Amino acid sequence: MTTTGKPFVHTTRVGYADTDRMGFAHHSRFVVYLEAARIELLRSLGESYREWEDRGILLPVTEVAIQYTKPAYYDDVLGISVRIVELTRIRLKFAYEVRCDAREAILASGTTSHVFMNKDGRPARVGEDVLAKLRG
Amino acid sequence: MTTTGKPFVHTTRVGYADTDRMGFAHHSRFVVYLEAARIELLRSLGESYREWEDRGILLPVTEVAIQYTKPAYYDDVLGISVRIVELTRIRLKFAYEVRCDAREAILASGTTSHVFMNKDGRPARVGEDVLAKLRG
Amino acid sequence: MTTTGKPFVHTTRVGYADTDRMGFAHHSRFVVYLEAARIELLRSLGESYREWEDRGILLPVTEVAIQYTKPAYYDDVLGISVRIVELTRIRLKFAYEVRCDAREAILASGTTSHVFMNKDGRPARVGEDVLAKLRG
Amino acid sequence: MTTTGKPFVHTTRVGYADTDRMGFAHHSRFVVYLEAARIELLRSLGESYREWEDRGILLPVTEVAIQYTKPAYYDDVLGISVRIVELTRIRLKFAYEVRCDAREAILASGTTSHVFMNKDGRPARVGEDVLAKLRG
Repeated sequence: MTTTGKPFVHTTRVGYADTDRMGFAHHSRFVVYLEAARIELLRSLGESYREWEDRGILLPVTEVAIQYTKPAYYDDVLGISVRIVELTRIRLKFAYEVRCDAREAILASGTTSHVFMNKDGRPARVGEDVLAKLRG
Repeated sequence: MTTTGKPFVHTTRVGYADTDRMGFAHHSRFVVYLEAARIELLRSLGESYREWEDRGILLPVTEVAIQYTKPAYYDDVLGISVRIVELTRIRLKFAYEVRCDAREAILASGTTSHVFMNKDGRPARVGEDVLAKLRG
Repeated sequence: MTTTGKPFVHTTRVGYADTDRMGFAHHSRFVVYLEAARIELLRSLGESYREWEDRGILLPVTEVAIQYTKPAYYDDVLGISVRIVELTRIRLKFAYEVRCDAREAILASGTTSHVFMNKDGRPARVGEDVLAKLRG
Repeated sequence: MTTTGKPFVHTTRVGYADTDRMGFAHHSRFVVYLEAARIELLRSLGESYREWEDRGILLPVTEVAIQYTKPAYYDDVLGISVRIVELTRIRLKFAYEVRCDAREAILASGTTSHVFMNKDGRPARVGEDVLAKLRG
């Protein structure tokens, strides 16, 4: 089953420690920005990822792909829109766009793919209740 | 002009700060491991990336794609093989494989794409001398 | 001249990437939390640190001291109170307390010391206008 | 019982991701450099910290203090000397000096304090065997 969820927008600010000597937010930091965005999307759907893990459902990343169009700079306020673009009982995929409203620019876009995993590190199939929640 | 350079292997160790509460090296850290690997590849070709930047040739990342197959754990020694898989006067692409020899496993593979940029942040065309060096 | 400014409270959330295999926010991340807090304190005083740097006033760190009392966990909302505890034309010192309101606990406290530096990397003396702003 | 162990020198290189827009290795990264240094010191004493944790002895940080004298720059090779300066059955303290040989400079010095903790997160007293190992 494939689905496209409603987009959620997470806002964050580029910290000083995020920048590199080029003056840009280092490209590795975008991976962390995307993670924060999908965690807030999950929270908006009614359950925090912390609660997921407490219940034994982990969501490790199997794939990250990011296209960087324009740099983000120190102190930029970024709006990261995230939505679910694929959802099955064993997998989940998110798509993202990173914007800087102050410069009316899309800075980056990307996707992350995940599998559901139990606490023993094995692939897991989630129940209909989890899918329903994720469909929003 | 497309070319495939000789592979170079960079060795690094998963630090404590790299791990997350799942016990894995956090997926964002692989982006940093790949960066260290390509920087050491460039050094092995005769000029450090620091010298490149001093001469006004910057190499920002335009795309990162990583597939994660198995987790890396704290204190694992990783061997990251990297080679140039695309090279023109304006662009450069690297391919990577991350191995943990102790567990005879490929943990991740991926690519990063780059453009040559000058100090003013504009796309630049590098000379034949740079290409020759990168061809190794 | 020594002074004690009004405290400012910056709120942040412990990200997944901040955690380590012990399940704690890694102690190095607190250094970044404190940085974000003092940057928001400066902003509350009327000028962002980004503007400071644009005007040629840099504030490198000369000393960090942090005492860790209790761990911070994934997804914890932290309240970081920060105030200026020392201010001269050449130096600046901040003191911090990191709290987790949900657990009514002080997790850490600390200080950072800084010198004013110009764009050439030399120590600088700031004017009375800057001091006045920092006194709040 | 207080003791001063033999110094161990750990070598690391400042990565691109470590730098900030000032062109310096970000001060928070030194906390990670020191961690790597003490982990290598422990390894040199005959047992890796990973093995310690597997046996149920954790070593959380209770205090970090770093004085920054000169900046570290991208690609600098740093030599971090570390030694044990305090050792009891419940506590351990390390002292560090960070040098850049190429510039014959001490860049930073500092200490970290730790308590022995068991897997349940409670303070623990280590045995005479552990102390003997740490005395080198």
